[in-house]
Amino acid sequence: VAVVATALAGIPEVRVGDDLAGHLARAASGEPLRDGDVLVVAHKVVSKAEGRVRDLADVEPGERARELAARLGRDPRHVQVVLDEAAELMRIEHVLVCRTRHGFVCANAGVDASNAGAPDRLVLLPLDPDASARALRTRLRDLTGTAPAVVISDSFGRAWRHGQAEVAIGCAGVAPLDDWRGRTDAAGRELNATWIAIADEAAAAADLARGGKDSGEPAVVVRGLERFVTPDDGPGAAALVRPLAEDLFR
Amino acid sequence: VAVVATALAGIPEVRVGDDLAGHLARAASGEPLRDGDVLVVAHKVVSKAEGRVRDLADVEPGERARELAARLGRDPRHVQVVLDEAAELMRIEHVLVCRTRHGFVCANAGVDASNAGAPDRLVLLPLDPDASARALRTRLRDLTGTAPAVVISDSFGRAWRHGQAEVAIGCAGVAPLDDWRGRTDAAGRELNATWIAIADEAAAAADLARGGKDSGEPAVVVRGLERFVTPDDGPGAAALVRPLAEDLFR
Repeated sequence: VAVVATALAGIPEVRVGDDLAGHLARAASGEPLRDGDVLVVAHKVVSKAEGRVRDLADVEPGERARELAARLGRDPRHVQVVLDEAAELMRIEHVLVCRTRHGFVCANAGVDASNAGAPDRLVLLPLDPDASARALRTRLRDLTGTAPAVVISDSFGRAWRHGQAEVAIGCAGVAPLDDWRGRTDAAGRELNATWIAIADEAAAAADLARGGKDSGEPAVVVRGLERFVTPDDGPGAAALVRPLAEDLFR
Repeated sequence: VAVVATALAGIPEVRVGDDLAGHLARAASGEPLRDGDVLVVAHKVVSKAEGRVRDLADVEPGERARELAARLGRDPRHVQVVLDEAAELMRIEHVLVCRTRHGFVCANAGVDASNAGAPDRLVLLPLDPDASARALRTRLRDLTGTAPAVVISDSFGRAWRHGQAEVAIGCAGVAPLDDWRGRTDAAGRELNATWIAIADEAAAAADLARGGKDSGEPAVVVRGLERFVTPDDGPGAAALVRPLAEDLFR
């Protein structure tokens, strides 16, 4: 099996209200999308198109935000937006480690100031990234006649490892997990690593095909994953979220 | 940029004392390795070649192992081997979440019973996976005249996400992290996701190119990462380990 990840060139700066699927379809027109493709899209352009941005000028920081901002040397309005996006503030360090309302555990509740498209603007995570992925897939089918799987990705830090790796925060049409549990090896022993986070690995593979964080390449086509692509949209990246009741590390 | 991951076919069952680099070089002879390639090798075959295996028949479980095994319904000898490999037992659940002596936090200290090559045999992590990667790289250069980067990988669970993703536990000749910290976006704002775990993402991409956990495809060539490949072996995957003092989630 060969897996090939190729960044789509020529996607313009995405603005609030843009038809993102239209941008993606035009960018892919040179080598048209196929049904078995997985299209990995950085969440930032999805959030921008959906208007999931906040301008600092519109934010009134509360007492908790001002207190945290003073402690961390940050803009209290920025901290207020993080608190607004967080369901739970898990750790307070140089970043605020939060659990979002989606259940994601990540730095600053996914709120990001870089490449926001305007000064003093913050980009939030999509409200429902799986719904965003489904909508993109449907619209791509309408525009192009093909329905690639869609993964919406973000860079998450990891509890015990340095650096960030790209993960899936939303998906449609790709199995988020490949479940080998209960299956056995050649000798009949249960396989150990048996529940593979396909959508996260696809997001990571796509990230390597980007020129860099400022390269303006928010979308990457991943080929060779046809066996994980499904006609139906499937459970989405919600299936990747470990429920609170199973969290050993709160 | 296109990133292409292709599994090497034809690697035989690896046995203790085998010349793994020889197996890899022969498997790659159809399409020879190039200097900018990243060769991702599942740790299991590295551990086997290095003799990092233990047979249950040789294990005498201590009191703690017997107690834990009774609680978890597991073989006390298997639990003893996990305890032997663990520097710290962090959580006791259906798996034992351990910190290994390398500093990795993973299930069962990386001890794995599947595809071990013999019944009642366990495969451990390499003692020093970065040294293993360097040795493989050197030996590949001797055998083939080219020195691809080498990543040694394992599947790790994640604290807040379901499923496992492949990560780098050892590497040589590839930058484990791509550091954008301090660099700014087009508007001069500091980039948020700015410290990218390249070696982990390469391990994840490689995993997608395997046919499956029982496919006997322990090695994958990843092309298109030339910009991260270095003549010197570099800091290794040790650079990916968050030091204990920075651990927010013990």
